[in-house]
Amino acid sequence: MGVLTSAAKSPKQDRSRATRQRLLEAAVACLAEHGWAGSTVSVVAERAGVSRGAAQHHFPTREDLFTAAVEYVAEERSSALRALGPTDRHTVVASLVDLYTGPLFRAALHLWVAAANEPQLHARVRELEARVGRESHRIAVTLLGADESVPGVRETVQGLLDMARGLGLANLLTDDGARRRRVVSQWAELVDGALGPG
Amino acid sequence: MGVLTSAAKSPKQDRSRATRQRLLEAAVACLAEHGWAGSTVSVVAERAGVSRGAAQHHFPTREDLFTAAVEYVAEERSSALRALGPTDRHTVVASLVDLYTGPLFRAALHLWVAAANEPQLHARVRELEARVGRESHRIAVTLLGADESVPGVRETVQGLLDMARGLGLANLLTDDGARRRRVVSQWAELVDGALGPG
Repeated sequence: MGVLTSAAKSPKQDRSRATRQRLLEAAVACLAEHGWAGSTVSVVAERAGVSRGAAQHHFPTREDLFTAAVEYVAEERSSALRALGPTDRHTVVASLVDLYTGPLFRAALHLWVAAANEPQLHARVRELEARVGRESHRIAVTLLGADESVPGVRETVQGLLDMARGLGLANLLTDDGARRRRVVSQWAELVDGALGPG
Repeated sequence: MGVLTSAAKSPKQDRSRATRQRLLEAAVACLAEHGWAGSTVSVVAERAGVSRGAAQHHFPTREDLFTAAVEYVAEERSSALRALGPTDRHTVVASLVDLYTGPLFRAALHLWVAAANEPQLHARVRELEARVGRESHRIAVTLLGADESVPGVRETVQGLLDMARGLGLANLLTDDGARRRRVVSQWAELVDGALGPG
């Protein structure tokens, strides 16, 4: 049954899924480049090569489109991070920090700051950020081989993710790569010492 | 000479200085509450109880007003922090983090994010952030009694300020105080261990 249904619907569904994906990727790029004020459904539709009507079929409101976009790319990044597999803690810390310095973080930051002053965004973005935050924490704990039953370990990992977020913010106006690598190297050592054998 | 000049100009200068200060404080409050899009010279002038003309006499452009405002409040906060005097490292770490969770950080964040997409703000805010960042670093080194000639110490302090910035960002949409206190407590201990005797 399942196979038949999916086979019968497939070509149209595939096109629809591809359109949706193009819209989400265009929305993140648009937010990262132009900020919330410059990001509308029309601008994104044009960038994705999709009609405005088709875009609104997928995402009835501007808020729908941009929260879905940030969530979609956050999930993509989480999957990539989970695929990292067992490696040394320095590589894990550097990869976690990388999550916060690309276009995804830039897009999320614009959405986040806009939500502070736009009531119709506030609740949705807060809920989205809480979900993404919990997921990043879970992934970090696994990759670092951290034992959260040990007092202080949970807060060590949380502080590391807060530091990563702060490094992302510092990177917004200047290319901060050289300084960041030195901080990451030192904090990877502190975290490694604090967590004990993985 | 100096005394005579300053005495002669005093009443008018005092009024002018008081007006300027009211404008700067109103500008920071306005940025924190309404973001960059909702922050104009007119809105700030009204909030400060100053005519639009008087406001423009002090600050010819919107960019002048808001960069001056963030700089002014950053200096106020730095002075308060410097006045902290010798105390334990846990108190120092908590006070540094406090710098990033009030209305000043909220205002600076709005200015910072707006600058990412507004060419006329970009260079000024980048320069301002670099100056404020260097000053915060200097104060942190002194208060923590950190010896930067020891390898890794500089990066430990920088990472701590990045963490404080990330904690400020996490506080933007939710009151994150309880979690923050636990993270601060754990990282104060890690930083204390990493810095050695002060």
